[in-house]
Amino acid sequence: MKNFVFYNHTKILFGKGQIALIAGEIPEDSKILLVYGGGSIKNNGIYEQVTDAISDFEYYEFGGIEPNPSYEKCMKALELIEEYEIDFILAVGGGSVIDGAKFIAAAALYDGTEPWEILSHNEEVIEALPLGVVLTLPATGTESNGNSVISRIEYKEKLAFSSPEVLPLFAALDPQVIETLPAKQISNGIIDAFVHVIEQYLTYPVNAPLQDRFAESIMLTLIEEGPKVLKDPTNYDACANFMWCTTMALNGLVGSGVPGDWSSHNIGHEITALYGLDHAQTLAIVLPGVMKVMKESKKEKIIQYAERIWGIKNQNEEETIKAAIEKTIGFFELLGVKSRLSDYGIPVTAADEIADRMEERGDINIGEHKLVGVDEIRKILEIRF
Amino acid sequence: MKNFVFYNHTKILFGKGQIALIAGEIPEDSKILLVYGGGSIKNNGIYEQVTDAISDFEYYEFGGIEPNPSYEKCMKALELIEEYEIDFILAVGGGSVIDGAKFIAAAALYDGTEPWEILSHNEEVIEALPLGVVLTLPATGTESNGNSVISRIEYKEKLAFSSPEVLPLFAALDPQVIETLPAKQISNGIIDAFVHVIEQYLTYPVNAPLQDRFAESIMLTLIEEGPKVLKDPTNYDACANFMWCTTMALNGLVGSGVPGDWSSHNIGHEITALYGLDHAQTLAIVLPGVMKVMKESKKEKIIQYAERIWGIKNQNEEETIKAAIEKTIGFFELLGVKSRLSDYGIPVTAADEIADRMEERGDINIGEHKLVGVDEIRKILEIRF
Repeated sequence: MKNFVFYNHTKILFGKGQIALIAGEIPEDSKILLVYGGGSIKNNGIYEQVTDAISDFEYYEFGGIEPNPSYEKCMKALELIEEYEIDFILAVGGGSVIDGAKFIAAAALYDGTEPWEILSHNEEVIEALPLGVVLTLPATGTESNGNSVISRIEYKEKLAFSSPEVLPLFAALDPQVIETLPAKQISNGIIDAFVHVIEQYLTYPVNAPLQDRFAESIMLTLIEEGPKVLKDPTNYDACANFMWCTTMALNGLVGSGVPGDWSSHNIGHEITALYGLDHAQTLAIVLPGVMKVMKESKKEKIIQYAERIWGIKNQNEEETIKAAIEKTIGFFELLGVKSRLSDYGIPVTAADEIADRMEERGDINIGEHKLVGVDEIRKILEIRF
Repeated sequence: MKNFVFYNHTKILFGKGQIALIAGEIPEDSKILLVYGGGSIKNNGIYEQVTDAISDFEYYEFGGIEPNPSYEKCMKALELIEEYEIDFILAVGGGSVIDGAKFIAAAALYDGTEPWEILSHNEEVIEALPLGVVLTLPATGTESNGNSVISRIEYKEKLAFSSPEVLPLFAALDPQVIETLPAKQISNGIIDAFVHVIEQYLTYPVNAPLQDRFAESIMLTLIEEGPKVLKDPTNYDACANFMWCTTMALNGLVGSGVPGDWSSHNIGHEITALYGLDHAQTLAIVLPGVMKVMKESKKEKIIQYAERIWGIKNQNEEETIKAAIEKTIGFFELLGVKSRLSDYGIPVTAADEIADRMEERGDINIGEHKLVGVDEIRKILEIRF
């Protein structure tokens, strides 16, 4: 096992009716900026639940955070923060809203030239406004981690930052929010969480059996509960199990003391930046390519994955690996998410375009062994055409 | 799944050489009380590692915390705290030292009549001195939870309290500390962690498959790695895996959203209070009794445990349950811990004595269904003679 630091102070309020309790978690006399997205919370009752809960506070609203939250939009919140002396951010939404709110929280107290540097130059976030979360779409795990991904439309860039300063103080997780979600968002959430776990698992063995089993626990539960949620989003227990999986998939736990390979996410972000695909769609495309192209260096863990997750028992390693990749693709397709570039009308030239772009930016030689270079990126995408 | 709140802010510094990093986690200008036990840290090099790490701070020492830390001893620390205006507690030791330090931290700021009320009357801990931990004996999980158990010698009482106020700010976990431990303490640690998980698992199903799998992950890893550690405590990876299991067994995670049955711990504490047995020895005695006497209400989970942990596949439920109990006892005995009262020379009259004592104090009708009454406690102990 590798040395690690594990730290996660987000207080999780999980279950029915938890949104009503958030006021008790917000510091007294806070001036709140309520950050949300396209307005779906005004149709599904969550807006009322939240505004009822915080009615004793002074609060202002900032709606319209987009899927793949934009730098341009987030920067507009800073004016409100200054004007009304906001000192607490309450994000109500899914991964995009929460990621946007994290960036706003950090940008508000940034004292460099422009907050874009947090993303483009990995400038350290020294402090940020405190942040709380009401999660309306289980998927990214951002409700209890310090990660955020922001797009700058002007540059067609999608970049990430990470800081414990933007770790939410609390996250209210009421599985009943899933009832009103479109099937597509549920599928995307299942895949996003599944791939988060895979990226902390499908590397090489470091003798960390507890982390392996925790990772497998989440994957098995997503495979079991995900389709139940899709079939009937009023199945409370299935929704609760799915929601808890998405949080546990990226809160630092399964990645503690083990290597990670974030190349599926890295390459996927490029597809979104250039072609506008949903984040989970890009993962469904890229992950099988990474597994195939990098199969030699991932062999032992792919075989363990094949056996423990899919029950594949085959003496032939090559066939086992192939079957594991097929099962993974099958799971994505079962959830209704297509897994080839051509399914989305993306030309085969995208492989060159993305590989070149990542090379230019220096975002190559990624993965657990830094073996995913420009040729590998190209190949990963070409075989997923 | 049940509603739950999950909150754990302890920053875990895990791995080789982590003790050297603790100074960075202690607030600047703190006046530290270094709390430790019988002095083994002065023989195994940990005392030097710790005092080197905090050499830039003003610190005072308070040694001599006993196994089963006593109220009487802990209260003596309060004089030092007042005299030197201590504002940070650094506990260096195993479960007893850390539990003692937690009580000291709470007692120092208690403003009722006497701090014993925190234990005897469940008086709420409103505030406590901040606390950090260097763990020298993996077992209880106290390094990242808010629990503490204290004995009052004068009354032959062993009582617990729990408060987020005494959750350690940080815990340095260096698996190399295990090298110098006597085999008995390692066995005790494995059993303590194993039973912690069982008590959050062996109740009744609430459709929480992720929590179930997490619990099973810890148990399987303890069964696999525990004997390796006993055989060779210089096996770093085995020690690391064992250590991480003990922390994860009682940090709130596997118990989130599921019922718990702490009757083995409750009854076990009485055996320690009256007969001085090690905590883990009492668990090895009591748990099989609880499983047997309460088997009807625990049936579904015992069968799941039998299948998933011990690979028992039997159509006959009665035989499956019996085999699971035998396997559990076999595991304890394999670790060198005897599991009957008579093994420790305790008379069969202890069953009555403990049952009566718990009845008098009102500590009956415990367990997940409050079905462990005075008769059940007596029976649980009688069948473990």
